[in-house]
Amino acid sequence: MAEKQELTQNQYPETLCRTYAFARRMHSTPKSFIREILKVTEDPGIISFAGGLPNPDLIDVDGIAQAAAAVLREDGRTALQYSTTEGYLPLRRFIADRYKKRLGLNVSPEEILITNGSQQCLDLVGKILIDPKDRVAIERPGYLGAIQVFSLYEPVFVPVDLTSEGPDLSALKAATVRDAPKFFYCIPNSQNPSGITYSDKCRRECAAILGDTRTLVVEDDAYGELQFSGRSPVPFKKYLPDQTILTGSFSKIFAPGMRLGWVCAPPPVMDQLIVTKQASDLHSNYLSQRIASRYLTDTDIDIHIHKIQAAYKKQRDNMIAAMRDEMPEGVTWTNPEGGMFVWVTLPAGCSSMEVFSDALKERVAVLPGIPFYVDGGGKNTLRLNFSNSSAERIAEGIQRLGRVIRSRTRQT
Amino acid sequence: MAEKQELTQNQYPETLCRTYAFARRMHSTPKSFIREILKVTEDPGIISFAGGLPNPDLIDVDGIAQAAAAVLREDGRTALQYSTTEGYLPLRRFIADRYKKRLGLNVSPEEILITNGSQQCLDLVGKILIDPKDRVAIERPGYLGAIQVFSLYEPVFVPVDLTSEGPDLSALKAATVRDAPKFFYCIPNSQNPSGITYSDKCRRECAAILGDTRTLVVEDDAYGELQFSGRSPVPFKKYLPDQTILTGSFSKIFAPGMRLGWVCAPPPVMDQLIVTKQASDLHSNYLSQRIASRYLTDTDIDIHIHKIQAAYKKQRDNMIAAMRDEMPEGVTWTNPEGGMFVWVTLPAGCSSMEVFSDALKERVAVLPGIPFYVDGGGKNTLRLNFSNSSAERIAEGIQRLGRVIRSRTRQT
Repeated sequence: MAEKQELTQNQYPETLCRTYAFARRMHSTPKSFIREILKVTEDPGIISFAGGLPNPDLIDVDGIAQAAAAVLREDGRTALQYSTTEGYLPLRRFIADRYKKRLGLNVSPEEILITNGSQQCLDLVGKILIDPKDRVAIERPGYLGAIQVFSLYEPVFVPVDLTSEGPDLSALKAATVRDAPKFFYCIPNSQNPSGITYSDKCRRECAAILGDTRTLVVEDDAYGELQFSGRSPVPFKKYLPDQTILTGSFSKIFAPGMRLGWVCAPPPVMDQLIVTKQASDLHSNYLSQRIASRYLTDTDIDIHIHKIQAAYKKQRDNMIAAMRDEMPEGVTWTNPEGGMFVWVTLPAGCSSMEVFSDALKERVAVLPGIPFYVDGGGKNTLRLNFSNSSAERIAEGIQRLGRVIRSRTRQT
Repeated sequence: MAEKQELTQNQYPETLCRTYAFARRMHSTPKSFIREILKVTEDPGIISFAGGLPNPDLIDVDGIAQAAAAVLREDGRTALQYSTTEGYLPLRRFIADRYKKRLGLNVSPEEILITNGSQQCLDLVGKILIDPKDRVAIERPGYLGAIQVFSLYEPVFVPVDLTSEGPDLSALKAATVRDAPKFFYCIPNSQNPSGITYSDKCRRECAAILGDTRTLVVEDDAYGELQFSGRSPVPFKKYLPDQTILTGSFSKIFAPGMRLGWVCAPPPVMDQLIVTKQASDLHSNYLSQRIASRYLTDTDIDIHIHKIQAAYKKQRDNMIAAMRDEMPEGVTWTNPEGGMFVWVTLPAGCSSMEVFSDALKERVAVLPGIPFYVDGGGKNTLRLNFSNSSAERIAEGIQRLGRVIRSRTRQT
């Protein structure tokens, strides 16, 4: 903040006098606390469990370089020109085919739109669905990036508590009856931040509750391919096809820097998504779509995904083992079946913000859980990322974190 | 439309029963008439002046392939990982340096954010500034893509007539006094659709009018590098630095398919843009940013830009010469100093929609000017693109179009 002030004074003396009349929605955006935290933790000397980065060693740089060279050599002029808003048809066909194969979903390529990562899906969904004061149901704790982007459309959030099986069913039922939310946003596979994967029973029961309502389901499946068992639970899209907007991402299985994701929606919703996508940025990076499509054709993506699953499983095992050794009594954590995060609950009254500060002094970064709560709360929770640290750094980092938490819990 | 219905019936019988409660803003979006037209004109047998594509022969495919290979070889793992919202610093530095060199603008890289083409800038600007019913001033005729994206934020448009010198000054003054618009959106260099470049005098006078108000200037400079004389007129950003949001694009000088643009804004505005960009899609395609940066370092971009300028000048000359030969009396057109479009005014009462239909039968596509008017009007105007057709196709297409218009004007 001090840095920004300085820039302003040096370069735009007059800016200090001018006030800008920003739209009302900008006042309802949560301060990007995570941005500030992640900046602090960029120092490579710090062992960081704070971010949410995939392991860069598992990006197939050579395979992608070969695909890029082939696309530019064989069809460069087209790959570099403007293209259609919907996205490259063979890539959309790949996604539809894979849904069929993995999940038994019957969707056509016309029901798939390529986006800039799955984050953009949430922006488009917010834009086509949310009027100010509309109710939006969200898991508690809920994905921070979704809270941020939906907030810009000024909804009223209706948090639904998560249990170890998925949403608390009576809370979900009560929320749909009382608030008639426009949609329920959820991450049924390895939820961010909690790491929870909804049980099959819970999915069926949620679907039954929601199927009786006009509430849509926005099912974020960023981690569906990262289930360590290789098992693919039945998505809401299968139970409630015309009521579910399903989003997916190539960031975790291909390359996050290429910002490729997709949204799969029933045709009337897709029509609106396409209009909105076109207005937002015409279409997603076409060269990258072509490279991804080529890569997915030339590579056995299942082998690559199994490699990532095996590596992350090991990293999770390392983190859980270290937690068992290092954490004092009263601290609990989830044991995620997939994804990239362990969710930690400290004893009541133990502040995760204080743990964050203490840990930073020990050169370990963690993410306090507070911004994942739309209604306050979560002050004794932490999210730990295991995908982006080596075994050694996980062991060392959790040891230091254990020391910090032991010292804090002794004080409370 | 018929095609969509069919899809719905085959795949989602239940969809027909379900109604979706879209946000109010979706009702205020103009139907994407241009989308439908461009679909009709995709047939390669049709000579199309309807779109707005750069000439693909002027994309340096080999240079870009070399840059891509170098980035992936030397720093692939980083180039494919998540990155910062603001964008790649050396690319932002290149833009700032080029502003200094070309336009004498003093902006720092911190005032530049990399976006998905300059279209995304308009979405971000709309999002941070427009509340429903806010006034937004726009040129008449105005850029269709801007009308579409701003419409989603539900402003009331205040059209300001264009003269051959730029905005009608008394209309601009009246609009600022009467409506106090949040911002004035304009394309001072080779405006889309009219092809007009604001005169130096008009720029100074507009700046004087706007400088006395709280109305911001959103200066879209997609075509600044495509002035055929090589001359770079003074931008509003120079006259009104803390009041102007300047957008730029690599689409016309590098590669549109890579969707790279940028926005340059005063620090307090930039803070809001970054928050909004992060919520929208985290960051722009990082691999493409790295490729662009590498390409701009390894290539003499000025030589490449001169080549594009020379080629487009020739294509414009061809089109204007053909117009002189083929158009009947009463038809007028602009002679643009840059950019990609000629703007045609038919005799009053001659319908551009009818000319469009007749011309399509002759296998020539043109774009009726109607969607560029936020207040109706323009029913006798057409936009013709000259950047994406060969000399032969320009000659042949204008000849056919002349025939169609002659036949129509004889009838009226």
